[in-house]
This record gives sequence, structure tokens and C-alpha cells, in this order.
Amino acid sequence: MAELRIGLIGTGAIGRTHIDRINNKLQGGKVVACADPASEFGLSVAQKMGLKGYADPIEMINDPDIDAIINTTADQFHEQFVLAAIAAGKYIFCEKPLAPKADACKRIVDAEMAGGKKLVQVGFMRRYDPGYKQLKEAIETRKYGEPLLLHCAHRNPSVPESYDTPMAVENSMIHEIDVLRWLLGENYATAEVRFAKDTRRTHAKLRDPQIMILTTRSGVRIDVEAFVNNGNNYEIKCEVVCEDAVLNLPEPANITVTANATKGIAIHKDWSTRFVEAYNTEFQSWINATKEGRVDGPTSWDGYLGQVTAAAASRARDTQTIVEIPFEETPEFYK
Amino acid sequence: MAELRIGLIGTGAIGRTHIDRINNKLQGGKVVACADPASEFGLSVAQKMGLKGYADPIEMINDPDIDAIINTTADQFHEQFVLAAIAAGKYIFCEKPLAPKADACKRIVDAEMAGGKKLVQVGFMRRYDPGYKQLKEAIETRKYGEPLLLHCAHRNPSVPESYDTPMAVENSMIHEIDVLRWLLGENYATAEVRFAKDTRRTHAKLRDPQIMILTTRSGVRIDVEAFVNNGNNYEIKCEVVCEDAVLNLPEPANITVTANATKGIAIHKDWSTRFVEAYNTEFQSWINATKEGRVDGPTSWDGYLGQVTAAAASRARDTQTIVEIPFEETPEFYK
Amino acid sequence: MAELRIGLIGTGAIGRTHIDRINNKLQGGKVVACADPASEFGLSVAQKMGLKGYADPIEMINDPDIDAIINTTADQFHEQFVLAAIAAGKYIFCEKPLAPKADACKRIVDAEMAGGKKLVQVGFMRRYDPGYKQLKEAIETRKYGEPLLLHCAHRNPSVPESYDTPMAVENSMIHEIDVLRWLLGENYATAEVRFAKDTRRTHAKLRDPQIMILTTRSGVRIDVEAFVNNGNNYEIKCEVVCEDAVLNLPEPANITVTANATKGIAIHKDWSTRFVEAYNTEFQSWINATKEGRVDGPTSWDGYLGQVTAAAASRARDTQTIVEIPFEETPEFYK
Amino acid sequence: MAELRIGLIGTGAIGRTHIDRINNKLQGGKVVACADPASEFGLSVAQKMGLKGYADPIEMINDPDIDAIINTTADQFHEQFVLAAIAAGKYIFCEKPLAPKADACKRIVDAEMAGGKKLVQVGFMRRYDPGYKQLKEAIETRKYGEPLLLHCAHRNPSVPESYDTPMAVENSMIHEIDVLRWLLGENYATAEVRFAKDTRRTHAKLRDPQIMILTTRSGVRIDVEAFVNNGNNYEIKCEVVCEDAVLNLPEPANITVTANATKGIAIHKDWSTRFVEAYNTEFQSWINATKEGRVDGPTSWDGYLGQVTAAAASRARDTQTIVEIPFEETPEFYK
Repeated sequence: MAELRIGLIGTGAIGRTHIDRINNKLQGGKVVACADPASEFGLSVAQKMGLKGYADPIEMINDPDIDAIINTTADQFHEQFVLAAIAAGKYIFCEKPLAPKADACKRIVDAEMAGGKKLVQVGFMRRYDPGYKQLKEAIETRKYGEPLLLHCAHRNPSVPESYDTPMAVENSMIHEIDVLRWLLGENYATAEVRFAKDTRRTHAKLRDPQIMILTTRSGVRIDVEAFVNNGNNYEIKCEVVCEDAVLNLPEPANITVTANATKGIAIHKDWSTRFVEAYNTEFQSWINATKEGRVDGPTSWDGYLGQVTAAAASRARDTQTIVEIPFEETPEFYK
Repeated sequence: MAELRIGLIGTGAIGRTHIDRINNKLQGGKVVACADPASEFGLSVAQKMGLKGYADPIEMINDPDIDAIINTTADQFHEQFVLAAIAAGKYIFCEKPLAPKADACKRIVDAEMAGGKKLVQVGFMRRYDPGYKQLKEAIETRKYGEPLLLHCAHRNPSVPESYDTPMAVENSMIHEIDVLRWLLGENYATAEVRFAKDTRRTHAKLRDPQIMILTTRSGVRIDVEAFVNNGNNYEIKCEVVCEDAVLNLPEPANITVTANATKGIAIHKDWSTRFVEAYNTEFQSWINATKEGRVDGPTSWDGYLGQVTAAAASRARDTQTIVEIPFEETPEFYK
Repeated sequence: MAELRIGLIGTGAIGRTHIDRINNKLQGGKVVACADPASEFGLSVAQKMGLKGYADPIEMINDPDIDAIINTTADQFHEQFVLAAIAAGKYIFCEKPLAPKADACKRIVDAEMAGGKKLVQVGFMRRYDPGYKQLKEAIETRKYGEPLLLHCAHRNPSVPESYDTPMAVENSMIHEIDVLRWLLGENYATAEVRFAKDTRRTHAKLRDPQIMILTTRSGVRIDVEAFVNNGNNYEIKCEVVCEDAVLNLPEPANITVTANATKGIAIHKDWSTRFVEAYNTEFQSWINATKEGRVDGPTSWDGYLGQVTAAAASRARDTQTIVEIPFEETPEFYK
Repeated sequence: MAELRIGLIGTGAIGRTHIDRINNKLQGGKVVACADPASEFGLSVAQKMGLKGYADPIEMINDPDIDAIINTTADQFHEQFVLAAIAAGKYIFCEKPLAPKADACKRIVDAEMAGGKKLVQVGFMRRYDPGYKQLKEAIETRKYGEPLLLHCAHRNPSVPESYDTPMAVENSMIHEIDVLRWLLGENYATAEVRFAKDTRRTHAKLRDPQIMILTTRSGVRIDVEAFVNNGNNYEIKCEVVCEDAVLNLPEPANITVTANATKGIAIHKDWSTRFVEAYNTEFQSWINATKEGRVDGPTSWDGYLGQVTAAAASRARDTQTIVEIPFEETPEFYK
């Protein structure tokens, strides 16, 4: 296949960023068409960006001139379009979460398995971040012994007014839920969510910061701080305490500046620049694998387990207890 | 007073280090005499070091030629000698913990208050560490807003075989219990202790690493990792998440070495070198204040609150629950 | 053009690395053929790698099925193949140096200008390194004022026995000669080369380390240390002292490891991994620009000025004097 | 001697800082008297600070109630008071430079040797900085091989209008001249001083920044940048390139602050805070040694060699040539 012809559903800001990325920075694929659950909006974006527009996303999915689908719609629309792509036998990249609830994710998993072919990749881009890859490599060799404890932080400058207490798990720390399971290579056993003193920048519907605590099947203990009204800094921390060493995720490299009686580096102010390399690698990798007829990123099973864990964490937060996460044997299909 | 004449009780390794420190590095005081609960041992050290030896520590405490006392005996001997010094109206520096149990500490507090004069300083040397002082200064100005969360670690290369599960709180994290209360300027509300996956280097009687979680009256949440069989590294971390900034305790300055394909700094291998400057400042400060008739370091009230908190944490660990810490109004005497 | 069909001349280790890079990691181009001044060797590599082999590189250059050329031959062969590509009107990427002597570079410049079209890119890959790009951006905005002084270092673990004193300028610091001129946006005025105490690891024909000092037309002073038998570390430093800040090129990001009483990061052991991202970006950028009919990297004029400067530095080293570098007005053609 | 009774000459800002340091922070000595070449000024400071005042500094030097002298007068007064102290057989601490010219230093050396007893310590406080001490220890063991090259910087936020071109060597880099000779344990062979592009913050009488280049007898090459109108930063750098490692002087430890999209540490804004620990150690060490009848800091021979080197560097700057520094055999007296 000379060039992968991609149709994108969900023409909001993130969708348009991905169109720009694929059409102007990456190689081997082109977003040639787009659509949106809000038909008029989707068509207007198509016109502005010189793409073919479809009033009905399902029609685009089924169009034989479209090779693969990217789904960047709002979470509640994810399931229907992913199922449609599976029904059409087409590869689909779906932004995280795969679907807002675990049972919806399970329906996708079931449909994909019934179809007999892996087609779905979920947008957990951190697995493509160079720093996390260096961490994973160092852990997997066991050259520093077994990992025992992880201390993580997910800090955002600010969030919209609509961001409320549950979103810290469901929207922010869902990234850690996926990437730490991948990092450690094992599933979770329990979840817990606690609060700290609230920042003055939050409001009645958002406890901020929060701490999520996960344990793995083998007993590794993980704490993740989510602090989403942090002023001006986007900062992702991941410290892995192994038996023989403590490993820390690096900040992206930047020039050191000594000025104004301070020596330091500029850090990122938002996720889109912090993880730009991860996004680029993620999509290039998806294009390459799709052209070769493979899924080599996070699968719908990963998306499902993410939502199972998030649901347990949400229950833990609402009840202020430690909640057990049911064991799910990975199907052969996804191994 | 030309030079403070100090009698030291407890002539083990730590006691002898303090004798060397005071007599050879610091100014204004001299350890002129020593004794030990094991009389013969105390007398032999006295002879070797050219000090006056006393078979009975109490006799030394009461000798009018001795101006002040340092108590570096094993924990179970602390109470009796501190009470004797109070009875004699003499200043006494007592290594932490003030006494192994909170009720013993309370008896010391009561005796000191009954005597009408502050005489006791407890050996929480971290308050004298330059890094902790920089942190406290940054927090107290509130230039970065309110502190909300703290992430701390207390990592030792190794511990003796006799070190068991309770000692992580009672012997190691007792330092954090004191220094973080001092750092934040408020008392604790709850304690919790959890375990992680054990390191291969531990044994049946020691869960290692452990996590202690404290909350303060105002809602600040603190997690402290104690990992005491850490291989080759002594590392103390303290990250203070404020509303507008994240502050981190520094490693002591050291030359950067680029060699063998690594760029880094040597870190300390044990507490005695890591905190040498803190110990020196602590004892110089104690000598100076004692000569001026003041206690300006951690008081017996601080020692008492430390043991109250440690007791709650120990109960939390044994029951695997969150334990409330009773509120203790600070007496006017100690304000 | 669907995919750029590339012929590579010079099938040694570096050439083969570039074949692998282009054919397996990058997009939009393929090395489809190769040749070598040693015909048999070139043909055998072609066979092993499944490429079309040419006994005569010139024949490959002139083959209409070849769109563009990569020249990774030994330095003395550069000129003839670059001139042949210009004669054939084909884009050619030539590894640095463009040619060993300035007059050979000048013949290439003249031929290219006579042909009326920029076709040549020189392999100064540092311009594509993310750290240098961050430095250049910070300098160009003048937000930290004018650059006044630069302190640089170019440190290699080791070099082959054949590497002798002149190669420190001609082979190693030629990279700094190019990238610093690009960083500062101005030409050089003087060159000087001095020696330090020799390392025990060198031999009679190699003074190591060496210091090259350049000044620019506007008076900026640059010192560059070349130390090529450095044990085990590949390290590139660039400190730019501006009027209002000091800026430092970062090490590539890597996980921090605290182990064995050291806290640090692994650094690279050779240029090929240190600059892998720069190489990838360089070639992707060359493929993209070539397909659009442009040269947007270092030109043959840059290659020529590099050799003019290196020649002055060599003269300065041989005479141990400060040598003036003749002013060369940049032709309109290269602006 | 219970407490060293010190008389201080030169009651300007630096002198008063030392009085405060000795009388309020250090142990074992007290500044009990003061005087100034400007008699009235000296007497008024004495009155304000509750010290005994002398109209004539020489009278104070000769008073049997004064045990030792500190000389913090302007440079041109150094010689006469140091000679007077030697004549009186009293220990004297003299701020750097020992005297403005090498021949004046030589007269001091000769007088001290004639007197038969070392009495003079010169105020090169960097030898007491913990970072330089760590560097010296790492160099001296030769565990990283021989030192080959040093890259240093001496950066000040700003200097008074009266600071002119020669002062960069004579007033600022005189510190490096002393501390690097001490660090390497060998004398200098040549000196050179060059200029860079001037900062906009300087004026006609001050070339800023400047580079001083020294070589040692064994061939080590040193470059020192002096940049004294640096905006807002006081920064001292010292990079020692050894055969097997590169060693860097650390910044003093400080808390890391992540705020306003920057992660960094505050650095010092002037020498008095940057080197406060060095000053304290220097004076405590001087008091201790003086009470024991020894000089264990930089001697008048060190002060003399410093001025010999500075004179060569000044000549090198004025002539823009490389100037040889005559070899001076260290007298037995000073070994």
C-alpha cells in the first residue's frame, strides 16, 4: 500500500492536531477524510482543511477508499465507532479511554475477538515516550533487582471548570494506570484514592490534589499524585524504587539557563508539547504497523483493563476504602 | 562561664563520636567526664580518652564540677538519667528518642514543668541540616502558597539483623515524624503504615520497604518511604508540594564526576557523614544556648509528641488501619 | 515522486548505517543501489543488502533510475563524486568534510553555481540535534542579550592509532567549526590552536587534548577543547555566555539512577548513539527537501567555509600563532 | 590562652562583617579593638560597636593587650601594617592581596623570614570552600589520573564604576590564581589575557568579559573567564579535565524549586553569601591555629607568588602576548 488513507472522526482540537501531525510531519499515511458526530462541524472542518467530508461517520468508516480510522470523538461516542470499524474489518486508532465504562470496553473486546483479528489500538501515548522506554528497559533487565515501590506525579497547570473530582482518576491518572501496568508487566490487585489539603485554586466539585494508590498482583505498591491546578507547570514524575537502585523518569532535555539568580531549565506547560515526541512516534508506529496488517500498540484489552482499574479506583475514592480489583486472565488472543 | 564542662553518659560508638566532635571540632565546651550504665565499660573509655570516669552515672550528674549532661545511652536508660538531670537542675542533651514509650516521655515533661525551667534538648539533628532549613524558610514565607502534600524517603544501605519491622517507624521514621512537624509548624491528625513488596535483602522479621502516611490537623498529607536495606546508598528525600511550586530537599553538594560513561555525584553511604554538618551545628548550638541558660532546640515536649505519633503509627501498622492521633494542646511552658 | 530512489557511494560502516536508517526507519526514500571506489567491495555489499550494485559509482550517478546520491566515501573521493552529481543535475548528500582541502570545496561551489541550482548538502548533522536547536532559538531571539563567549568541548572515548594531531581540527572540531558559525550566524575572524598536558593514553603523533580558539567578525570568542582519548565517555559541551544569561547545551535525557553510592545518568559512549536523533532528522529532512526540489541543510558554501577555517586553524597549530581568516562574502546564490 | 584578643585595622564594610562574624558566630576569639588609617572613622566605628578604639593603628598593633591583628584596610595600606605586626611578633591575617605589587610582597616575605617565624596569613578564602576541598581531594588521589586542563569562570552581577580593565586580573581572578595553584600543587609557567566581545553593560575603561590563560610548570592549561557585569548572578565555575574523568565544582546546595514553568535552584547574588561558609571556616581556622602558634592557611609566600603571577598576567594583557612567569624556588621556610 503506497500510502495509508485515513479517515478521522471527531474534528475538535485534538483531532485537528493529529491531522496536522500525520499530513505534515509523518510519513506513509494521509488523513484524507473526516467526519464528526456533529455533522455540520465535521463538514466545515473538512472543507477548511481540504479533506473529503462525510456527514455520517459510519459512512466514512465503510467507504472502501478509506483504509483506516482515527477516533478522536468525545468519550461517549468511542464505542459505536470502534464497533463499526471492527464490523468493517478496518484498523482503528481510538483515543483513550477506549470507552467510558468497562462494560463498553468489554463489548469492544468481544466484538474484536469474534471478528478474529486485532484491529484496535488505544491512544496511550506514554508508552512511546523515550523516558518511559528507558525506564522499562532498565526494569526489564532486572539489573537493578525487582521493582518494589513506585512514586508518581501527574501535575497540570490548570483544568477547565467542568473538570471534577472523578476526572482525576478517569481522565488524568488513567495514563498512569496504563503506563505503569505496561512498565511493570503485571496486573493490579487493589486501588485506593485519598485526598490532601485542597489548593486554593480549586472549587467545590474538585478535590485537588488527590493520591491514587495501586498495588500489583506481586505486591508492588504505587502512589500517584494528581494535582491539576498547579499554576504554570506540566510535570510528570515516575520514581521506581528497585532492590538495588532508584530510577527516575527524566524531564525532557532542555538547555540550562543561568539568569536572574537562578540556574534551571524550562519545563513544559502542557501535555501536548511535553509528549509531542511520544505522539509522533505513536502515530508513525501505528501507520507502519497498520500498513503491515498488525497492531503493535496498546490493544482494546489494555483499554478494557484500564477502565476496570479506573472503576475500582473510583469506587475506592467514593467509599474511601481499599477496593480489590478482580483478576482478569489475559485471553490468548491478546497475548 | 569560660567553657561548659560536660559529662557524657553512654560511651558506645555514638557517644564517643560526640566526645570527639565537642572536644576537637567545636568551641566553648569540653566533655570532661563520662560514665556508662555498664560501669566497667564507662570507666575504661574514660581512661582511654583521658576523661574523668564515674562508676555511677548519677554521681556524675550530681557532681558540681559538671555543668551539663549528654545522654547517649541505649533507649531504655534515657528516662532515668534525664529525670536525674532535671532533679539536679542541669541541662541535658538526650539522643532521640527521648524515651521508648510516650508515657515515659510524659513523665519527663511533667518533671521538667514541675521544676519550672526548660532543661532538656532531644537529639533531632535534622532541624539543623542546611537543606531542611532552606525548605522551612521557603515554606514559612508562603511565597509558594500553602503546603498540601509531602513525599519523603528515608533510605539506608543496610541495618543490623536485629532491626525488625517496628523499628522502621520507631528508629528510622521517628526523624521524619519530628522534622516534618517542625517543617510544617502543625501537629498530626492520623497515621497509617503500609507495606510494599519486600526486598530480597530482608528477612522474616522485617517488612522492608514500608510506607508511613501521616496527615496534619489542617489536612496536609505526607507519605514517607522507609527502605533500610538499600544496598549502598544513604538517601533522604523530602518533596513539598505547595500550591504554587514543588520544593525538593537537595542532596549535599558534591563535585560532579563524568567518568565511565556516567555523569553524577557521589552520595553518602551513611547518616553520620550525610548529617555531619547538622550534628556539628546541633551541638555547637546546644553548647552556646546552655551557656546562656536557654534551650533552643527540640524540647522534651517535641520528644513526647514524637513518641505519641510513633505509637499511633505502630498501632496503625499492627492493625493495618488508619489511626487517629489524639490532639495535645502545647503547654504554655513549651511555646 | 512516490519514493526517492537513492544511490549510495561508499559502502563502509557509516554508509551501511545510513542505508539501514533510510530503508528501515525513515519514510519517503529508499537506498536502492550502491557502489564503492573499491568496485568489488561495493558489489559485495550490494548483494548482501539486496541492492542493485554498480562497479562504477559514476555509472550509478548517471543512471536515470537513481534520483539522488549519498556520498559516504573516504574524504579524498568526495570531490569527484560530488562534481559528477552536479554534472548530472542530481541532489547529493556528502558526508563532512565536503572535501579535504578548501580549494577542492571551492571547485564544487563554482561548479554548483555554474550549474545554477543548489544540489549539495554537507553532513553536518549537529544542526539537527535538538539541544543545538534549543540553543540557537534562545540565542536568536536575543532575549538573553548578545552572545559574547563560548566554551565548548568535544570528548571521545578513544580514536584509532592512525588519528594524529591535525585530525583534532580536521576531523573532530570541524563539527564545532560548522555548528558554531550556524549557531551565531556570523563568520570567523581568527583561529588559534594550543596544547595542554598530554594524556598518558596518547602517542607521539597525537597531541591530546588540544584547544582551538576562534573569534568571530563581531568579536565573540570561542574556545573548543578536543580530547579524543577520554576513557569511556562521549561528551559534547557548549556553553554560550550571553550578556544576560549563560546557556548550556544539555546532555540527552536519560533516567537518573541512584545506585552504588552515586546518583547520575548514563551518558553516551560514541557519536553514533549520541547523535542518532540528529542523524535521523538530518536524513528525513534531506529526503523531504530533495523530493520538493530544495536544499535546506548545510550547503557546499558551508562546506567550503568549514575547510577555509580548518585550514587557518591548522596553520595556527603548526605555527603556534594566531591566524587571520580571510573574509569571504557569501554569494547571493547561497544566501 | 582563653580567648584570642584581636585588633582589626580597616573598619569599612568588610572589616565590620568580620567583626560580626568573629564576635557573634565563631568561637575562641574576640575582636576587642579596632582602628583605621582614617583615625576619626576608626574611632567612631569602635564607639558604635563597643570596642576599644585607637587613633593610631600602629599603637594598637604594639599594645600588649592585643594578641593578633586582622588587616582589612585598602590595598595600599597592607604592607605597612603587616610589617608592623611582624616587627611586633604578632600573628596577622591580611585580606588579599597581600600588597598591590610583588616587590612589596617580597619585602613582607623577607621581613617574616628575617624574624624567623611565620606570622602572616593571606585572605584567600576559597581554599576553605567545601567544593574546592572536594575537588582537591579528588585530584590529589590521582584516582582519575593526571589533571590536564582546567576551565574556570568568575562571574559577578556587577562592579562599581571605578572597576577598570586591570582589576579583572588584580582584584577578581587573583582568587583563581591562588586557588588553582593550591588545587594543582604546582607553580605557573606562562600567563596570557585576551578579550571577548564586550557586554553592553560595561564602559570605556573596562573590557568585560576577559579570559586569562595560565599554564603550569608541568603543562596543565587553565582558562579563566572573568565576567563582572553579569546581570544578576554570582557564579564560580571550575572544571578539571583529568585523564580519566571530568570534575566540576558544585554550586552550593539549595532546594530545587519547580514553579513558573522552570525547574531550578536559586544561586547566589554575591561573593559574601556564596562563600560565607568558606569565610567562617577560614577565620575559625585562623583563630585556632593562632592560639596554637601556627599559620596553616595561605602564607605571605602564597601572597607573593599571587602578585608575581598577577603582574605577569597584567603585562600579558597590556602587550597582548604570552608572558613567561619566572620560576621561584619555594624557600624552606615556607615549605
